[in-house]
Amino acid sequence: MKIAILPGDGIGPEIVDQAVKVLKVLGESFEMEFAPVGGAGYEAAGHPLPEATLKLAQDADAVLFGAVGDWKYDTLDRPLRPEQAILGLRKNLNLFANLRPAILYPELAGASTLKPEVVSGLDILIIRELTGDIYFGQPRGVRECPDGPFKGQREGFDTMRYAEGEIRRIAHVAFQAARKRDKRLTSVDKANVLETFQFWKDIMIDVHKEYPDVALDHMYVDNAAMQLVRAPKKFDVMVTGNMFGDILSDAAAMLTGSIGMLPSASLDANNKGLYEPSHGSAPDIAGKGIANPLATILSAAMMLRYSLGKAEHADRIEAAVKAVLTQGLRTPDIFEDGCTKVGTSEMGDAVVKAL
Amino acid sequence: MKIAILPGDGIGPEIVDQAVKVLKVLGESFEMEFAPVGGAGYEAAGHPLPEATLKLAQDADAVLFGAVGDWKYDTLDRPLRPEQAILGLRKNLNLFANLRPAILYPELAGASTLKPEVVSGLDILIIRELTGDIYFGQPRGVRECPDGPFKGQREGFDTMRYAEGEIRRIAHVAFQAARKRDKRLTSVDKANVLETFQFWKDIMIDVHKEYPDVALDHMYVDNAAMQLVRAPKKFDVMVTGNMFGDILSDAAAMLTGSIGMLPSASLDANNKGLYEPSHGSAPDIAGKGIANPLATILSAAMMLRYSLGKAEHADRIEAAVKAVLTQGLRTPDIFEDGCTKVGTSEMGDAVVKAL
Ligand SMILES: CC(C)[C@H](C(=O)O)[C@@H](O)C(=O)O
Ligand SMILES: CC(C)[C@H](C(=O)O)[C@@H](O)C(=O)O
Repeated sequence: MKIAILPGDGIGPEIVDQAVKVLKVLGESFEMEFAPVGGAGYEAAGHPLPEATLKLAQDADAVLFGAVGDWKYDTLDRPLRPEQAILGLRKNLNLFANLRPAILYPELAGASTLKPEVVSGLDILIIRELTGDIYFGQPRGVRECPDGPFKGQREGFDTMRYAEGEIRRIAHVAFQAARKRDKRLTSVDKANVLETFQFWKDIMIDVHKEYPDVALDHMYVDNAAMQLVRAPKKFDVMVTGNMFGDILSDAAAMLTGSIGMLPSASLDANNKGLYEPSHGSAPDIAGKGIANPLATILSAAMMLRYSLGKAEHADRIEAAVKAVLTQGLRTPDIFEDGCTKVGTSEMGDAVVKAL
Repeated sequence: MKIAILPGDGIGPEIVDQAVKVLKVLGESFEMEFAPVGGAGYEAAGHPLPEATLKLAQDADAVLFGAVGDWKYDTLDRPLRPEQAILGLRKNLNLFANLRPAILYPELAGASTLKPEVVSGLDILIIRELTGDIYFGQPRGVRECPDGPFKGQREGFDTMRYAEGEIRRIAHVAFQAARKRDKRLTSVDKANVLETFQFWKDIMIDVHKEYPDVALDHMYVDNAAMQLVRAPKKFDVMVTGNMFGDILSDAAAMLTGSIGMLPSASLDANNKGLYEPSHGSAPDIAGKGIANPLATILSAAMMLRYSLGKAEHADRIEAAVKAVLTQGLRTPDIFEDGCTKVGTSEMGDAVVKAL
């Protein structure tokens, strides 16, 4: 089995190194091939997603991704900026289902800005559609405003859209995920304002007929943002579109106060996937050896479970991560008095040892 | 001066009554005229925004609005649903600037789900553009998908758009508001993905040239959602589009844990405005006399300040609200041990007395 390893920029390489360490001690003969992406892709080949990198990702059974972005690329034209690599990979590999768990380990409850009783033991799964919506809809651009009171002026515009089949397939992913958990699914929409999301809601209701054992409810996105702050533990699985999912999954991640712990998976229809930590490239701490590698290690665990058919390894890695937390080991981002402060590489070694 | 009073549905009438009480003791001869809106408009005239109601709102110097919506109208066709009245009023009255303060009174810090040190003394102002964006953009609807892998299927679609003049005018409102506060403005966009918001960002940077005394920074909407949870007190004024503003202003309101305290103003270019509490119609507690009227009373204060040129009355009302909190009076939504629980009408009376 072949894994494409794309470390990227900032802390990407250091954290990916730790996940690779962990993968190497599982006793499997994974073929791991590295390629540059993001700013590193631009440096190496003049493009954030070099052709060879895309080809490697397409040929591999799974992709392990670090993070991309650095201030020094902020002045490049948009098509050359690091984050375009993420969008390009999602679209080219058809990674339409983004799974973003927001889990708060009881040991880390103090790290949250929310009161412990509101978030301790939080375990929600946000499923974000990842290849449709206003992210990719055409037409888009800057044009002359065609009508209304601003007619003749320049205007920026984009197209939000979801086709029936796009909604159906993410609905199935969501209902099936809910079925494996507490059997409660919240579909987040803005059906009171947007045609796209009235349509989304109608299809969700239709697909629900095939999953009578799952309870479905609908919530407007503004209310969902409020309920995540008010009582996040009430949610089990949430499903929403690309744009709303971008906002809500980040908000949910931040509720835990330990975004350095949160993995993510982006899957296609055949469970091929790209796995990456939920946090960014943190250029301010890059190269200092203090980044938290656990989100990336847990992303590798998701990869073993969803794309490589090795759920037992995934379970072992997740248990090992829990063990190092119980041992009191903490990178600076999650450090608390009474714990032992460790660096990126020491944390990786500790997980290997706990395995 | 003429004030249109639109109580609406659910708790709307009870809370508006208290604000009217307060307005009556100021010693001004406001002409107050009532009209039905939302579900009440539908009952009275078959439409959530009856023509006579719209005309009254257009003729008045300001509009005091309660809340709209009730489960019993959920099955109506979208154009007849209560919330269409809000959208109709915004669009017809050109209320493009929505001011949503998120303030946490120190007395109420315990009501928040966030740790007191994270939110106590919170005082941010979110300025949401209210008549543009994907809320009103055309074309929109359900059509046959014209291209791509889902060609021929049905798809829901909407148009996001902002014209230059629309962005400029909300930018001016935001810079001027920041100038009266801590002189820091955060423009929230998604310029890394959306053409509309790259354009938005470019115009913000251009308008900034006229306000060199205000510090402007730019933040992606997903990051803004995170920072509101992580360190909300770092913000002073935030400005964003209609859709992002809908989500972020509600999230920010919920940070305080006391959404029953938060007023809002929606202004046109001449400071005519519609004023309403940030919370909804709460049909579950309607008629019970327990709803918190303070958000509506504070909305009336904003009305006096922005639309009626009576800032001194606004100051007095705000001081009176602080006084009743200091006295320990609390409606059930903000009740804590050691305080005195009061109902809607008692709370209104207490504010009148404190004046
Ligand atoms: C970098 C950006 C294009 C991306 C997105 O908006 O999807 C990021 O925020 C994410 O959530 O992975
Ligand atoms: C009721 C709805 C149309 C409205 C909106 O989305 O603007 C509401 O959520 C608000 O924020 O006032």
